[in-house]
Amino acid sequence: MKYNELFVFLSGLEEKIKKMLKQEEIISLLKPYEINESVTSYLHRSAKRLRPAVFLMACGCLDKEVPIDTMLPVAFGIELFHTWTLVHDDIIDNDSLRRGGLTVHKNMEQWSLKKLGLNDKEAKEYGMDIAILAGDMQQAWAINFFVDFASKNTEYTKVILKLISLLETEVISELIYGEVLDVKYSYVYKDIEKFLSIDESEIVNMLWLKTGVLYRFSALAGASLALKTDNFKEPSIVALSEFASKCGIAFQLQDDILGIVGTEDILGKPVGSDIREGKKTTILLEALKNANTEEKDIICKIVGNKHATDGEIQLVTKLLDELGGIEYTKKLAQKYILEALPYLKNIENSEYKTLLIQWADFMYDREF
Amino acid sequence: MKYNELFVFLSGLEEKIKKMLKQEEIISLLKPYEINESVTSYLHRSAKRLRPAVFLMACGCLDKEVPIDTMLPVAFGIELFHTWTLVHDDIIDNDSLRRGGLTVHKNMEQWSLKKLGLNDKEAKEYGMDIAILAGDMQQAWAINFFVDFASKNTEYTKVILKLISLLETEVISELIYGEVLDVKYSYVYKDIEKFLSIDESEIVNMLWLKTGVLYRFSALAGASLALKTDNFKEPSIVALSEFASKCGIAFQLQDDILGIVGTEDILGKPVGSDIREGKKTTILLEALKNANTEEKDIICKIVGNKHATDGEIQLVTKLLDELGGIEYTKKLAQKYILEALPYLKNIENSEYKTLLIQWADFMYDREF
Repeated sequence: MKYNELFVFLSGLEEKIKKMLKQEEIISLLKPYEINESVTSYLHRSAKRLRPAVFLMACGCLDKEVPIDTMLPVAFGIELFHTWTLVHDDIIDNDSLRRGGLTVHKNMEQWSLKKLGLNDKEAKEYGMDIAILAGDMQQAWAINFFVDFASKNTEYTKVILKLISLLETEVISELIYGEVLDVKYSYVYKDIEKFLSIDESEIVNMLWLKTGVLYRFSALAGASLALKTDNFKEPSIVALSEFASKCGIAFQLQDDILGIVGTEDILGKPVGSDIREGKKTTILLEALKNANTEEKDIICKIVGNKHATDGEIQLVTKLLDELGGIEYTKKLAQKYILEALPYLKNIENSEYKTLLIQWADFMYDREF
Repeated sequence: MKYNELFVFLSGLEEKIKKMLKQEEIISLLKPYEINESVTSYLHRSAKRLRPAVFLMACGCLDKEVPIDTMLPVAFGIELFHTWTLVHDDIIDNDSLRRGGLTVHKNMEQWSLKKLGLNDKEAKEYGMDIAILAGDMQQAWAINFFVDFASKNTEYTKVILKLISLLETEVISELIYGEVLDVKYSYVYKDIEKFLSIDESEIVNMLWLKTGVLYRFSALAGASLALKTDNFKEPSIVALSEFASKCGIAFQLQDDILGIVGTEDILGKPVGSDIREGKKTTILLEALKNANTEEKDIICKIVGNKHATDGEIQLVTKLLDELGGIEYTKKLAQKYILEALPYLKNIENSEYKTLLIQWADFMYDREF
């Protein structure tokens, strides 16, 4: 099987993360029930754990001696950091499903309807309140994994402090910038003619901010801990970071593709909501460029219409495909992977390098 | 003047914080405009800066040598940590004003109406989205102050790591617990008969979680950095922490009083909204206990009614006062200050101890 080693590695990591979760004493501090459930729910669900995986693979590439398990707390911290962004994103995007279950705010909306007897409006607000606070708690908990690791492993203290500093300033501000642009584009470019004047690089930059930045950080963290250096300009650290950064863009381009032509059961989240929310993707841009007036009118009427029927969604999906939007974006994703791979040329061969190469291919090839 | 030294100290600190704010390089990373404006707006407005003040005063009590300015970055970090809780609280409480200006979500709602041409519903959502992300950024930025300080001052690294760990696990989970209880009580105890069966200690515990916990942490951080120890059980650290913790409850009880009988212009936030939101305070509990059936009916009809008129608010305010709710809560606040002061008995006399004593009195005496 093409991704055999990668999938074995990922499922091993998934198991380790779930085991750690069971032993986490902090969870007993989380009160009341609503917060405890909301902080932990996404972590309990099956997931790919790609960011901690990239962290561990980058670390393994540069330090063959370090046992993976030593670095697990930092890997968990990275997964948790990613998780709070999901919880808050889901509020912002009004999404209902994540990883095969209800999103945090939706779950608490339903819970408070049943258990607290709130009315619809109150329950909606309560669900959102809990989700905001649960994400806040996750951000803090994530940082505690880094800090705790730095306290217990003094040979890594200096590097970890520099990593937290990077994460809590540049990385998070770029992530948030990307998230705001994503929301803003769906409003500002409602007018399709205006959207057609956007440069593709603006969309790609937004995707990079939203996703590439955290993948880059994951690789940078693994590589710098392996070398025990806080000189993040060291060539092999830069190489692994840039590699992960480019692959991150491909990951997000493929995410946009799956958001339109993916399979709900496999993805664990709804397909079609990107169209209803009017998400501004390279798929949409390319299709519009190739559309005739009639096709353009159909797309304009349905994209961004929150009440579009399933039939209308199917119609637009078909058009986006036939007008070459999907294929174009697929090729764009491939282009970023081709740009990423040469960064690995000076990295010594190892099982971890093999895993990273498989991961890169998987980024534009994945169905989930 | 009664609080002369304290006010001089607070205004000096305010000036220093505003000066630091101007030099903060991180601010240039904050994009787009909406995030930059939202992350910094509360910090630019006049404020009491009580939490960083308690931190510095506790530090000064145990280490007469340390120049206050050395510890300023940590003080700023504490203020910033407090600030993200305000931004997210304001969303949750649907508040419109804070520190004499619009709350972050309200400000961005108005901005997006004007500048992005959104409709009312979209603008409300956009304002909230930005406020969620701005608070997220502030939490991260706050931690970066601690981490940066730990990197640059290696003699404090160990203590700072333990402090971040405490803040990011116990302290934040208690804060969030308190916030959820506050929201939840307003729903669960809508039925006044049910509310009358609540034990006063439940309300006080909620106030302690919401406010006392962060005051306790501020004193603990100052004291432990002064002694350069991560043994937080050291008697003078415990004494200063418990002192601040009790005063924190008094602060919040007085906050509830000012939320009903305060002066809007002095407070910089609306008076009456606590009544409209149906906030469950010791004031309300005591007044209801002393009310006859007719008075109880009036209170029940108006408290928790979001559309109550100004006249109705005035009527309830008068009743809460005449039925002894205000006086009772004032005495309760005083009781906590009286319980707090003996904790200072083994702390050597100094200008900082004098400041802490003035601060304690100010907690239940303040009009703003």
